[in-house]
Amino acid sequence: MEEIYVFGHKSPDTDTICSAIAYAKIKNLTPARLGEINEETKFVLEKFCVEIPRPIENVEGKKVVLVDHNEFQQSADGIEKAEIVEVIDHHKIKFSYDKPIKFLTEPLGSTATVIAKYFESDIEKIEVNEKKKIKGLLLSAILSDTVVFKSPTTTEEDKKIANELAKAVGIDALIKFGIDIKKAKGSIRGKTVESIIMADFKEFDFNGKKVGIGQTEIVDINEIYEIKAQISKFLENLKNENYEMTVFVATDIIKEGSELFFAGDKSKIEKAFGIKVVGNFVYIPGLMSRKKQVVPKLQQVF
Amino acid sequence: MEEIYVFGHKSPDTDTICSAIAYAKIKNLTPARLGEINEETKFVLEKFCVEIPRPIENVEGKKVVLVDHNEFQQSADGIEKAEIVEVIDHHKIKFSYDKPIKFLTEPLGSTATVIAKYFESDIEKIEVNEKKKIKGLLLSAILSDTVVFKSPTTTEEDKKIANELAKAVGIDALIKFGIDIKKAKGSIRGKTVESIIMADFKEFDFNGKKVGIGQTEIVDINEIYEIKAQISKFLENLKNENYEMTVFVATDIIKEGSELFFAGDKSKIEKAFGIKVVGNFVYIPGLMSRKKQVVPKLQQVF
Repeated sequence: MEEIYVFGHKSPDTDTICSAIAYAKIKNLTPARLGEINEETKFVLEKFCVEIPRPIENVEGKKVVLVDHNEFQQSADGIEKAEIVEVIDHHKIKFSYDKPIKFLTEPLGSTATVIAKYFESDIEKIEVNEKKKIKGLLLSAILSDTVVFKSPTTTEEDKKIANELAKAVGIDALIKFGIDIKKAKGSIRGKTVESIIMADFKEFDFNGKKVGIGQTEIVDINEIYEIKAQISKFLENLKNENYEMTVFVATDIIKEGSELFFAGDKSKIEKAFGIKVVGNFVYIPGLMSRKKQVVPKLQQVF
Repeated sequence: MEEIYVFGHKSPDTDTICSAIAYAKIKNLTPARLGEINEETKFVLEKFCVEIPRPIENVEGKKVVLVDHNEFQQSADGIEKAEIVEVIDHHKIKFSYDKPIKFLTEPLGSTATVIAKYFESDIEKIEVNEKKKIKGLLLSAILSDTVVFKSPTTTEEDKKIANELAKAVGIDALIKFGIDIKKAKGSIRGKTVESIIMADFKEFDFNGKKVGIGQTEIVDINEIYEIKAQISKFLENLKNENYEMTVFVATDIIKEGSELFFAGDKSKIEKAFGIKVVGNFVYIPGLMSRKKQVVPKLQQVF
């Protein structure tokens, strides 16, 4: 039988990788990834003894299942000429395809939550060791994508399902495990500014204007201030190359707020967030989610 | 609480109306319709003692759930400014929305099948008389949209779920019930050509070109030949007003084939279906489904 590849978005995060692996295991498909995995995801895969999915370059002519994204802009090269079999996601929808397919999205905290919710009976049928791995991956992805339930994208279903998964996997201290996952991403010290900003960077089309938004989660916000000049310079160069605006959101998961750096029209940032900005970065308390708190606000002003 | 309206596409058919009513009953929402119901749907609603949903004109500013369609072109006026809460469908996807929502499509024979499959446990919780109505509506919609399992859109799941619903509703002769539903649409004699063509008429955007495709199901194909000149004239006028091409598919559910009338570039029809056409209509054996056998083929040649 022809191989069907399951993968998430470019600049893969833990939800994208774990959802791809879990769904591939559930449906007997081939997991893949678009880009390198980060330290956090590596920690999770090692924890549950799961192999890193193979990279995939161009999917033209291939059969694919998209998880954790549905916009072609965030997908593999050649996606316009791939045969899309299914989409499982939790993001906003911008999708068009010529024939009816299975397409399932729900505004839950992670794609892993959607998978755990709708494919529970499939998961239960799987052999016990594999099942434990799947549940461990899904649990980790929920904790990661909801920033240990601190993100405003978190729903009651995320918490409920995560607790059930934790019980099944034998993890008692759920929150501690979540913070361990987040800490695994580690210090940004010693990393290049490019690798920090581009590790989780997404492109958006706001009314025909291209906007790029990177995000990182940190445990100690001071590390960001040490490199603020380099961040601004990098965003400025990146903008001049290819974007109307570039944004970098450094989210302090302990303080529960973000330092938002940008290059582009300042008045748009001020209008979007209803704040006065001096310079080219600003701390916004409570800002945790690119998807829920940055993208919709910026989209509105464009 | 603010009302949430559930409705299907314009020119409502039995699947659109029954899915809207059933889903509204399941989720305690308000069913609505875009346009008049047809004789077939009327027969079904009377059979299960269910009221005709209220018409809805403009949905600007309203909260809505779309069933049995997802393209704005087929939806209510003002849909661009409505708050879309959910989409449940079985058609191809052309959808864009600014925030994450619940969106569920699967390539099954009817939207009713998708509802019956994914909301089974919700349905089971409903009071016994209401439950029987919901199941009767879903069963009727499956039989209608799959043309009593003769349409190539029919899947094994449609048959399995229809059989389970029939058992629950107490209908022994499933196929006979399906044909009764189809017959209820009745003869086209005495109807105006406009009402025959426009009763189930959908607009499509093929590569920027507007194409309108109507379909009717008939038990006696000879009735169509009696009005072939009027049909051609009507399609021609309609095309000149607003379309690149207009098509009317008269499907004989007994013979299992369709007489396809068209106004527009004949070579496109010939290329799409791989046939030689003399005049402006042609009989195509085995052609039952607009969605699966007409739309994709025409889209490819545009």
